[in-house]
Amino acid sequence: MKIATQKFNLRPRGETGRHAAFRTLWPQGRTGSNPVEGTMEKIKIIPLGGAEEIGRNMTIVEYRNDIVIFDAGLQFPEEETPGIDYIIPNTKYLEERKNKIRGLIISHGHLDHIGAIPYLMDKIGNPTIYTTRLTKAMILKRQEEFPHAPMLKIQEIKSGDKIKLGENFKAKFFDITHTIPDAIGTAIETPLGNIIYPGDAKIEHNSKGEPTKIEEYIKLGKEKNLVLLLESTNSEKPGISISEATVCKNLEKIFRESPKRIIIGTFSSQIERIIEIIKIAEKLKRKVAIDGYSMKSNIEIAKKLDLFKPRKETIISVKNIGDYPEEKIIIVCTGAQGEKEASLMRIASHKHSHIKLHSGDTVILSSSIIPGNEKSIQNLKDNLARQGAKIIHYEVADVHASGHAYSEELKLIIKMLKPKFFIPVHGHYFMLKTNSMLAENVGIPKDNIAVPIRNGAIIEVSKDKIQTLKETAPANYVMVDGLGVGDVKEIVLRDRQMLSKDGIFVIIAVIDTKENKIKGSPDIISRGFVYLKESQELLKNARHIVKKIVHESANMRPLNINFLKDNIRERVGKYLFQKTKRRPMVLPVIIEV
Amino acid sequence: MKIATQKFNLRPRGETGRHAAFRTLWPQGRTGSNPVEGTMEKIKIIPLGGAEEIGRNMTIVEYRNDIVIFDAGLQFPEEETPGIDYIIPNTKYLEERKNKIRGLIISHGHLDHIGAIPYLMDKIGNPTIYTTRLTKAMILKRQEEFPHAPMLKIQEIKSGDKIKLGENFKAKFFDITHTIPDAIGTAIETPLGNIIYPGDAKIEHNSKGEPTKIEEYIKLGKEKNLVLLLESTNSEKPGISISEATVCKNLEKIFRESPKRIIIGTFSSQIERIIEIIKIAEKLKRKVAIDGYSMKSNIEIAKKLDLFKPRKETIISVKNIGDYPEEKIIIVCTGAQGEKEASLMRIASHKHSHIKLHSGDTVILSSSIIPGNEKSIQNLKDNLARQGAKIIHYEVADVHASGHAYSEELKLIIKMLKPKFFIPVHGHYFMLKTNSMLAENVGIPKDNIAVPIRNGAIIEVSKDKIQTLKETAPANYVMVDGLGVGDVKEIVLRDRQMLSKDGIFVIIAVIDTKENKIKGSPDIISRGFVYLKESQELLKNARHIVKKIVHESANMRPLNINFLKDNIRERVGKYLFQKTKRRPMVLPVIIEV
Repeated sequence: MKIATQKFNLRPRGETGRHAAFRTLWPQGRTGSNPVEGTMEKIKIIPLGGAEEIGRNMTIVEYRNDIVIFDAGLQFPEEETPGIDYIIPNTKYLEERKNKIRGLIISHGHLDHIGAIPYLMDKIGNPTIYTTRLTKAMILKRQEEFPHAPMLKIQEIKSGDKIKLGENFKAKFFDITHTIPDAIGTAIETPLGNIIYPGDAKIEHNSKGEPTKIEEYIKLGKEKNLVLLLESTNSEKPGISISEATVCKNLEKIFRESPKRIIIGTFSSQIERIIEIIKIAEKLKRKVAIDGYSMKSNIEIAKKLDLFKPRKETIISVKNIGDYPEEKIIIVCTGAQGEKEASLMRIASHKHSHIKLHSGDTVILSSSIIPGNEKSIQNLKDNLARQGAKIIHYEVADVHASGHAYSEELKLIIKMLKPKFFIPVHGHYFMLKTNSMLAENVGIPKDNIAVPIRNGAIIEVSKDKIQTLKETAPANYVMVDGLGVGDVKEIVLRDRQMLSKDGIFVIIAVIDTKENKIKGSPDIISRGFVYLKESQELLKNARHIVKKIVHESANMRPLNINFLKDNIRERVGKYLFQKTKRRPMVLPVIIEV
Repeated sequence: MKIATQKFNLRPRGETGRHAAFRTLWPQGRTGSNPVEGTMEKIKIIPLGGAEEIGRNMTIVEYRNDIVIFDAGLQFPEEETPGIDYIIPNTKYLEERKNKIRGLIISHGHLDHIGAIPYLMDKIGNPTIYTTRLTKAMILKRQEEFPHAPMLKIQEIKSGDKIKLGENFKAKFFDITHTIPDAIGTAIETPLGNIIYPGDAKIEHNSKGEPTKIEEYIKLGKEKNLVLLLESTNSEKPGISISEATVCKNLEKIFRESPKRIIIGTFSSQIERIIEIIKIAEKLKRKVAIDGYSMKSNIEIAKKLDLFKPRKETIISVKNIGDYPEEKIIIVCTGAQGEKEASLMRIASHKHSHIKLHSGDTVILSSSIIPGNEKSIQNLKDNLARQGAKIIHYEVADVHASGHAYSEELKLIIKMLKPKFFIPVHGHYFMLKTNSMLAENVGIPKDNIAVPIRNGAIIEVSKDKIQTLKETAPANYVMVDGLGVGDVKEIVLRDRQMLSKDGIFVIIAVIDTKENKIKGSPDIISRGFVYLKESQELLKNARHIVKKIVHESANMRPLNINFLKDNIRERVGKYLFQKTKRRPMVLPVIIEV
């Protein structure tokens, strides 16, 4: 929880009850005639998540009585959030305006865009989700793991569709290129102009270096585009990204040159590439075994939706790879990030029940390194290499391409869409800032750009002005930990961090309060501090200190337990630090008998 | 502790006492006449650290009755070693052969080469350290923090010196290029040929792309070189590294173009660059303020040894930067890795007492990203950018160069030294392996290369053969935690990891053993699990379960306390998991009265 954000509620303080509800349903300013109403002739754009991180993307567009939400993603935990499963956007602002929500538009099926859905739909009134066929299937698949979550209402949309959302919005959809099929961009028509949100997108360049599939951008560029919300993930990367076509060409070349088995680790979300790998395998008459739960499940969904049609005999079970010659096998698996329980890591650490590496095997890591995973990936490479496999990774050959536009692609998108105002989203502040400089570079005036300074920044756009309000929407971390959503507070995390450094030291003293005398010897329970078997002297001395402290209080009537505890905490803590230079959490427990 | 290494003791089992000691002092084979002695005509080379990581470098060379040690470095802790300060090499093998140690040669003053000295000299019999002037000063400076460590014996050496080490070794020294002055390479003359260890080295290339300062390598290449121990840090990097001269030229250009203050974050160990920055500042008539304890201390030492002579008025105190116009200020500081308490991070988070960022300031991050620090550096950049500073980092301009040879430089070093055998050191296994392929590439036969499969690998070299023995020297982690060296065992780390995920849940029940009845309500102490204030129901139910378990045992005579505790641990643990999907460490304490 690095940035404390101010809790802000647009409803004036003290105003509750019927009138407040009335205001929510029928806000002032619908006809736009008086000064108060005049202020409503502005669109509010609020990134509730994804403006300070890669992940938990969620941006809302609010105009008059209507709110539309783009995406509901999750973020993976950080070093500062030990034990946490996920971090999701803070939806307080939306919860207070449930009745205004006209829909949740999901751009594509990756977890940083759909992952928060099971946790927050109930809280925001379960609005209708608008998304494409594959994304819908992926959302529903994930929802199966949450039997108590409400039934989702999903309306399927496709490129070219136009739907009315509330009184003021019409959403139009257009195809974009990412690493997963059925990714879609949205343009929301408003009385002030279009708000465009491509989601995650890249522009593929062909071998001549020409951009491809840009017709829809160019067409949309002819409209009255008020605001472009553009992702910033790769804004710091110069030039253009490697094309997915190049990656597939390189993979085919490596496949042809590999004498024995080929094992490819990639992200399970990289569905387009996996489909291409299967196609190449068919061309080279190799069988494909897919390993890893999420990957198998994604490919199943894509097959079921007829997004690709492998030959019946192409895909085999991992259990049966032994039935075919080694030169006929391709294994596509999860774990290229060195995730502990994933397929490739189990292969590397000799824990896979069906796949043992042989010398002569080629292992391709067809993925980039997600920051934070460097050490696990190093470990993975080391263990694969120890077993004699040949390892090809993205730093030595172009076997991976990002799905996110590099700076020149971002500039091209801005130039094609010609928005009046520009708001960079998706990324850390520095990436957003860098993206804003790209926009300036292609002619968007500085005054027409608003860089969200943090999540929850409220950006107001009128016909001719963009500005960030002083108020912010609540945006502090909402953490998912087991069944708890948002119940893990800062104090719990701080305790976990402290416990992980020097452990805990619990002292239990039974005191006869009649005489203020300690009964027997205090019990000590310690974990994560020292190796107890070799620390008997230390424990003995700690017990002695406790006895001494109790003895000193022999004449205190009544015995002040809190004073005693503080005393024990302080003096034992000091002793332990002096002897070990460690500071375990010291917890005295006094049992009065 | 990812890799369990076998404990290996060359002394035959069960052999102790006087004869064993005699063997250690007067080992067989000194005259080389019988078959047993014949096996001694081999040199053993053992990387005790630095063969599975970047850091804790230590390699030993053993021949007959003599051992020489190269470097004694430390490694910074990893995610799997929470709370640990440092990891140092395991010196068990040396401790058992103290009397054979003829010296510790230190290649340069970086922590991954000198950092373990205060912790292990005592254990290995405090042998004489041989090193250069600056390195000596840095070792002694660090030693001041360890008042109880033994007084070091350090013999200063310089390039061209030749010293006898025991009966069988002569060490000769040669200049190498790294990022710190006074870095030195060593060639150990042995009856079988030279063992060469350059330490960390790069080959600077001039603007025409020609290698510079290679005369000593070429000269040494004419000798009978048996083994080259070559670092592998950048073996995966293609081509040649950026030259330090280029970096300084670029820095000068940026300095000239910066209208206001310049703040440069770099490693305090990058002494050569800091000296160059001070020289450029003098040329541009800017004052230099140095901020950060380690950096100030390093520059003090370099100044004291006359490694550079700044003008008296150039270096000013950070406290006085306000006394000069902004365009006259350069601040060189620590914290470019986003280290929490370091100077630049304090500036970024508004916590620095003397430096506040102004818009117009230029911040240069003159360092690379050490794996594991990505997120902290991102955070640093974000917070600097939020304050309006212009940020220049190594990904957008060549403002940092590595001190470690890239693949083409490694190949050049191998070609110049023409060793018969090759052993890659310093790096993760995959880096070592890649380095070995570079050696093959320039003509070293595969059979003449031994890649240490792990730390503690014993490599035996004779006149015409190199092989890795089945036995290994002990090499498991020795962890420094506060005052403890090696006392933190795996169980302590495992507890810390567990505590950091779901916290702890201590249950204290007072039981009247006469009637097997619980007295009062059990006490519960929990940290890092749930937010206690909002979990009263959970605590109440957990207490209820404990009471029930005690009640069920009412008729057990005598009361089996361990049975009771196991029962509580299991059933309360299960209940908590069911309600929260978290698994805190459950610790039952039974107090019998």
